[in-house]
Amino acid sequence: MNENDLMTQVVALCKRRGFIFPSSEIYGGLANAYEYGPLGVELKRNIKNLWWKTFIHDRIDMLGLDSSIIVHPKTWEASGHINSFSDPLVDCKNCQRRTRADHLIENYYAQKQEPKLVEGLPIEELQKIIEKEQIACPSCGEFQWTPVRKFNLLFETSIGIVPESESKAYLRGETAQGIFLSFKNILDSTRVKLPFGIGQIGKSFRNEITLGNFIFRTLEFEQAEIEYFFDPQNSNWEELFDNWQEAMWQFVTIQLGIGKNNLRWREHTDEERSHYSLRTVDLEYNFPFGFKELWGLAYRTDYDLKQHMEYSGQDLRVTDSSDGRKYIPHVIEPAVGINRLLLMVLLEFLWQDEANDRLVLKLPYHLAPYKAAVFPLLRNRPELVAKAESVFKLVQSAMPTTWDDRGNIGKRYLSQDEIGTPYGVTVDFQTLEDDTVTIRQRDTTKQARVKIHDLLAELAA
Amino acid sequence: MNENDLMTQVVALCKRRGFIFPSSEIYGGLANAYEYGPLGVELKRNIKNLWWKTFIHDRIDMLGLDSSIIVHPKTWEASGHINSFSDPLVDCKNCQRRTRADHLIENYYAQKQEPKLVEGLPIEELQKIIEKEQIACPSCGEFQWTPVRKFNLLFETSIGIVPESESKAYLRGETAQGIFLSFKNILDSTRVKLPFGIGQIGKSFRNEITLGNFIFRTLEFEQAEIEYFFDPQNSNWEELFDNWQEAMWQFVTIQLGIGKNNLRWREHTDEERSHYSLRTVDLEYNFPFGFKELWGLAYRTDYDLKQHMEYSGQDLRVTDSSDGRKYIPHVIEPAVGINRLLLMVLLEFLWQDEANDRLVLKLPYHLAPYKAAVFPLLRNRPELVAKAESVFKLVQSAMPTTWDDRGNIGKRYLSQDEIGTPYGVTVDFQTLEDDTVTIRQRDTTKQARVKIHDLLAELAA
Repeated sequence: MNENDLMTQVVALCKRRGFIFPSSEIYGGLANAYEYGPLGVELKRNIKNLWWKTFIHDRIDMLGLDSSIIVHPKTWEASGHINSFSDPLVDCKNCQRRTRADHLIENYYAQKQEPKLVEGLPIEELQKIIEKEQIACPSCGEFQWTPVRKFNLLFETSIGIVPESESKAYLRGETAQGIFLSFKNILDSTRVKLPFGIGQIGKSFRNEITLGNFIFRTLEFEQAEIEYFFDPQNSNWEELFDNWQEAMWQFVTIQLGIGKNNLRWREHTDEERSHYSLRTVDLEYNFPFGFKELWGLAYRTDYDLKQHMEYSGQDLRVTDSSDGRKYIPHVIEPAVGINRLLLMVLLEFLWQDEANDRLVLKLPYHLAPYKAAVFPLLRNRPELVAKAESVFKLVQSAMPTTWDDRGNIGKRYLSQDEIGTPYGVTVDFQTLEDDTVTIRQRDTTKQARVKIHDLLAELAA
Repeated sequence: MNENDLMTQVVALCKRRGFIFPSSEIYGGLANAYEYGPLGVELKRNIKNLWWKTFIHDRIDMLGLDSSIIVHPKTWEASGHINSFSDPLVDCKNCQRRTRADHLIENYYAQKQEPKLVEGLPIEELQKIIEKEQIACPSCGEFQWTPVRKFNLLFETSIGIVPESESKAYLRGETAQGIFLSFKNILDSTRVKLPFGIGQIGKSFRNEITLGNFIFRTLEFEQAEIEYFFDPQNSNWEELFDNWQEAMWQFVTIQLGIGKNNLRWREHTDEERSHYSLRTVDLEYNFPFGFKELWGLAYRTDYDLKQHMEYSGQDLRVTDSSDGRKYIPHVIEPAVGINRLLLMVLLEFLWQDEANDRLVLKLPYHLAPYKAAVFPLLRNRPELVAKAESVFKLVQSAMPTTWDDRGNIGKRYLSQDEIGTPYGVTVDFQTLEDDTVTIRQRDTTKQARVKIHDLLAELAA
């Protein structure tokens, strides 16, 4: 299928089968917000658990963390988010459409078939381009924009326990700062030696003012971020950087099974890189709307810890155990959005099987929400249903399993195919005689009879 | 140890060993906010995964969900949170201390040894009591309170993509409403039959204005809530209610291993029960600060769906498949805070082993952050370290494992005891000769030599 069709199919499948719904639909919806339904939450859990196992449990140099969404507001002054975590915004005075000025310009050039990147340009430059090109509002066609202004992406709120004047707080715009805030406590409580990393998965919030591509860009999203701390005198950053690139690549290509042709590395240019970063590369995926950032890797130097030292007045330095030298650790940061991983997985594995006229979500076994589905051949024969229920209980005790007794077997297979269930298990009249069931494989549609005794082994991956 | 000591010990252990830190410490802290460090995040994950397996995966009548923290603001009008989700607040005009009027009064009576419950009284009544008793500020001793006023517990924020006038939004005060918002989409996409339940784990936010007891009451916390939907004509609510009470009891006493003497059920009185609830019981745990709510169970009738129907204008009724009758499902809601489960577990299993002069976190095996710790007898003998590393890799491939080569073996055992690691595995000189290691059990301190070949089987629960 072509790329627009693919996105449309994924969005429709997600709604139809309970992976992902638009948020607050009964109230007319909420822009850039989604709910993860019964299948979506399982798929997301599988991705998160795989990340946690790979990067926290299976490595001896990594520790986990779960830090707060609302932290002391000074954090965001120190990190620079209050001053510079903003998007350039314009409002159409005619129809009230609000949009990002840089995206407005990029879409304009894209439609003229002259793709141009303007993200990151100063607002004065963006203003000039909009005026020079007389870019009209895509909603109403008028040219009545407000001036371009900066809009900070941090959600603001206030804390009740402190007096009004000091109550302003923010929802975190990234999980990374929680790692820097807890760095000293973690070092003291675990007495871990550098180099080591701290990783966490948690929600972050960005007050996005442009409509995203489904779950690619949303108001709230789950990040999996790592800060890998090292002593710049004893570790070679280029080497650590290479190792992390390799670890990210392995995770995406091997653990998630994504095709290499749909992936590429993109080196940030000097202009787009944050001033404190010495090198940033993005692992990009070939989304239907183009190659876009999936996973960023940045060498952030000692910028964050230094800022927090300055703003807090606390000493966050580490003492070298061999010579007593005190130093501020440097960090390398691999940061990925779980929601983007999930969107990539859905896009990558949705397969229109023309030969068999079916839609298949060809998920790797370990990502599938259900590993097996159990069916009684007929729902109106109590002896079949009872036997199927006992088979269901057996399978469910070993793996996430679903049950279906609606329609005919063919329809049930198709229904499981599109949610990615690797195996269908049918209990029929022969089962009552010889204790065998039919296993049907999702990808090949091949069927085989096996003894119930051997069933769990057959269904294991 | 006595109860105050127990709480002090738990808080100190959590900080010292990296379970839980006060939030934003480098910036002087943030009231009612905590960070879960490397051990805390693992213990919390184990509790959450156990809940998910028990209530979502192992039941055929349950589905999972992961709904948004920021949803359409109408949600909170419909649910009643905007009008009535508030605490009575007073400020001391002298020292600016802000506190809950009801807690101020209850603490006053508790100190007079005349315990009295005033939570839930109208603010006029609270005002009268404070004036009549001339209750002074516990911080500065003055009697200069502002009048008692209602303070809404929902955190407010605003969404950037919509015009300013319509931008007000809230952080959810409970996860439950997300379930009602998605109810219709889940029903349509899964075609599940009633009775069935939807459960989710996620963060909720309450703008608490009184200092909590460690993690018992915090600004942000993780809820595990279930809404169990049924047709009141076809299901008996008392029976479902009993079943859920039993399921909660089993989870706490058997899965978490909590002693029955530390638990009790408390029936809500008619006055304290929400107007829409026909019955509410709390499962309470004997915290050091008294028996307090751990897990609430409420029969909320059809209140929420009815409210959302009215406010959204959408039909949220279910059609009975046998007779086509349309009805609004009723719900029973078991709602627990993961942070309270975690606090209970820490309090329940911290054990001062006087006989052996040690502090032991006697966690059930499946809750322990690490299942085993591997030690080389001496860290300066490369052949021992190399062998121990190979043993470590073996064990780590099968279960979460930690490594320690500091100090002597005795100290390492004690260090693992207080973080709850069930087994210590020591590699010594005999290991190099006959491939055996010493396994030491946390609770009994007993040691035994086993073949490395049999090690994984010995360490499995």
